[in-house]
Amino acid sequence: MESVCLYEGKAKRIFETEDPDVLRIAYKDDATAFNGEKMEVLEGKGRLNNKISSMIFERLQEAGVESHFIKQLSETEQLVHPVEIVPLEVVVRNAAAGSLIKRLGVERGKQFFPPIIEFYYKDDELGDPLLNEAHIAALSLAEEKELLEMKKMALQVNKELIWLFEEAGIDLVDFKLEFGRRNGKILLADEISPDTCRLWDKKTGESFDKDLFRFSQGSLQEGYEMILKRLGGQES
Amino acid sequence: MESVCLYEGKAKRIFETEDPDVLRIAYKDDATAFNGEKMEVLEGKGRLNNKISSMIFERLQEAGVESHFIKQLSETEQLVHPVEIVPLEVVVRNAAAGSLIKRLGVERGKQFFPPIIEFYYKDDELGDPLLNEAHIAALSLAEEKELLEMKKMALQVNKELIWLFEEAGIDLVDFKLEFGRRNGKILLADEISPDTCRLWDKKTGESFDKDLFRFSQGSLQEGYEMILKRLGGQES
Ligand SMILES: Nc1ncnc2c1ncn2[C@@H]1O[C@H](COP(=O)(O)OP(=O)(O)O)[C@@H](O)[C@H]1O
Ligand SMILES: Nc1ncnc2c1ncn2[C@@H]1O[C@H](COP(=O)(O)OP(=O)(O)O)[C@@H](O)[C@H]1O
Ligand SMILES: [Mg+2]
Ligand SMILES: [Mg+2]
Repeated sequence: MESVCLYEGKAKRIFETEDPDVLRIAYKDDATAFNGEKMEVLEGKGRLNNKISSMIFERLQEAGVESHFIKQLSETEQLVHPVEIVPLEVVVRNAAAGSLIKRLGVERGKQFFPPIIEFYYKDDELGDPLLNEAHIAALSLAEEKELLEMKKMALQVNKELIWLFEEAGIDLVDFKLEFGRRNGKILLADEISPDTCRLWDKKTGESFDKDLFRFSQGSLQEGYEMILKRLGGQES
Repeated sequence: MESVCLYEGKAKRIFETEDPDVLRIAYKDDATAFNGEKMEVLEGKGRLNNKISSMIFERLQEAGVESHFIKQLSETEQLVHPVEIVPLEVVVRNAAAGSLIKRLGVERGKQFFPPIIEFYYKDDELGDPLLNEAHIAALSLAEEKELLEMKKMALQVNKELIWLFEEAGIDLVDFKLEFGRRNGKILLADEISPDTCRLWDKKTGESFDKDLFRFSQGSLQEGYEMILKRLGGQES
């Protein structure tokens, strides 16, 4: 398939298709962390993330969450609708992990109910700073109505995914979402995968997510395979 | 006056009085910046801040803003009601200055309307991290109703102070407020002074505030005297 690469990010390449209403996303094997400071090629990562993200987006669509997702195309590719990405990373936290622990001085694993929703400015040069809603308005990054919609959708995604992972014996600790605009609507976009979630084994507390790579805690691929298996996806 | 010092902070000492409903605040000459990294004793600073803060609280009370302030007691002291301090620093920004510029990649002086309100966790050990409202709820730092009240009061203080400084030929760029609880009510507390505001000369852009000390730009006392004089306060 010959086609124009519109954008190459840290984890995916985005391609045009013959249909202007359809993009092809190709998942890469690159692993990066700490804003690109740590990087490595991990064979199989693209395939695993593509499969897991596809399964999750299918599940969310069944639950009525509107997204860019059309279908999985191949082992490492999926088709999506093009959106104008809102330059915000929307983080949902059900429990304390990662940067939050030191920032707020809270204990790892402390439960949050209702979950904490955070908006970060999607800007690698600025190091993705935390924003409040007044910053978002001042920088004209999203309208108030859009923020409300993103928060509502983030909570719905959270509810669906907690349930999905619960059945797989996994705690959904936190995750990052991206949203986009299409025909005046806010759609869930980008990916939901062990790259963008913290997933802890309910029994052992073991991480099955990118923290394996961030903190060199074990084989990323084994963790991601475990997620795929527990979600009922076939390992090829 | 012999009395118990309840608390010694970086800029003030708080004393008991015979009346349990009244505290005495004594302003110190200590200047500190960057979370205590830079410090110096600047003679006259306590007197200037006490006078300016007293004038401002008097003005705000006339405008109907409920606060801890009772009256100025002496050159360096004032009487206030005791409150349970809400551990939040409430920052109002009419234009971009200080840390915001680098964090958000905006131009110094960029105007914000409506102003940006920020909440920082008043915790020196954590370095006063920025919070959003979900963090505040998760950490039980303030109730939603209290947050609403603080935001409303912060905007009212902003309106009054913009006007007060406007008449003095000064731009109110940003400032920090603290609030406290007393008899189930939220009261404006702490101080409002050139230590806690950014104040720029409307004509020259010159700073008349703590940035003089932070960045060794000139005599802090001369800047603060200028503020006091322009506000119509007598220099003793
Ligand atoms: N449906 C879509 N339309 C347009 N862009 C998208 C869509 N879904 C995701 N993107 C964007 O594709 C880019 C590539 O993804 P990724 O490799 O994860 O990039 P990054 O390095 O920015 O994280 C991201 O900027 C993401 O926001
Ligand atoms: N009315 C009040 N009742 C009780 N505490 C107060 C009141 N007003 C201010 N404070 C507190 O007094 C302390 C002393 O002030 P300051 O020297 O500025 O301390 P800091 O080093 O924390 O900035 C601060 O913690 C402030 O929150
Ligand atoms: Mg990405
Ligand atoms: Mg103080």
